[in-house]
Amino acid sequence: MTLFDLTVPQLQKMLRNVDAWLVAAEKHAAAKKFPVENLLGARLAPDQFTLVRQIQTVCDNAKFLPCRLAGKEWPKHEDNETTFEQLHARIAAVQSYLETFKPADFEGADARKITLPWTEGKWMTASEYVIQFALPNFYFHVVVAYEILRHNGVELGKREYIGGIPLKA
Amino acid sequence: MTLFDLTVPQLQKMLRNVDAWLVAAEKHAAAKKFPVENLLGARLAPDQFTLVRQIQTVCDNAKFLPCRLAGKEWPKHEDNETTFEQLHARIAAVQSYLETFKPADFEGADARKITLPWTEGKWMTASEYVIQFALPNFYFHVVVAYEILRHNGVELGKREYIGGIPLKA
Repeated sequence: MTLFDLTVPQLQKMLRNVDAWLVAAEKHAAAKKFPVENLLGARLAPDQFTLVRQIQTVCDNAKFLPCRLAGKEWPKHEDNETTFEQLHARIAAVQSYLETFKPADFEGADARKITLPWTEGKWMTASEYVIQFALPNFYFHVVVAYEILRHNGVELGKREYIGGIPLKA
Repeated sequence: MTLFDLTVPQLQKMLRNVDAWLVAAEKHAAAKKFPVENLLGARLAPDQFTLVRQIQTVCDNAKFLPCRLAGKEWPKHEDNETTFEQLHARIAAVQSYLETFKPADFEGADARKITLPWTEGKWMTASEYVIQFALPNFYFHVVVAYEILRHNGVELGKREYIGGIPLKA
């Protein structure tokens, strides 16, 4: 198993799932006759990010991970989304970017010293970064976004969280 | 990177983190002078698991993962916890069990067909199981437990979620 196999396809899959949850939220809002954007400011604790910031952070973490492994600069995003349509576009932009990564981009990642803004020059290995920081952090914001929607009555279940599994007969 | 490196140490670390969140909840309840067990029935949506069931599920997923990779039966737990002390004991029991796993237990896992109760005999590879099901599902219940505590005022932050990172100078 390579770092690529472990990360990029699954990030893409979870972004597809998150995008579908936003569609479910739009359907819920239409059925209940409220503006779906009312959900953007929802949060589960007063000192946590709102839904819109959770989605932005999911998108950011999905680009940070492969960029840090490949030693690339990531594309900047303005974090100025105010509509679901703009959030769909943000996810789509990250999806297009992730499609540009190939397994060869991660060659040599195991020898790279991964630093983060808050590590003050200290580093971790690529595997430590992926297993102990990047994936747990990515799933954190994915699940909190999901929970904000569930808490607000959007009809989602574990199937929509996990997405399709490549089952073989 | 092996399936063992990717899973067992990180499951152990997240269980240590979850155990520490329960301690934080106990301190919060003591400071606010309410019985901490009041939190056990808390949930974020009426059709989701309560906190106690989330913790039980975190524990279950932490044992299912290595057992399915190693082709072992897992120890049964009764799911009858009604106190935080019993939840600490449940986590400790799973930690002790996880310590019995060695990388050699996962040799041959890549050739194993992983089935789940709901896959009706259909299977996935060990890597597909870990990446697309077991880790996302484990983190799901971990984060929901965290969010239930945060939503109820327990003082936790991202540092307590991620836990220690092996930073090198």
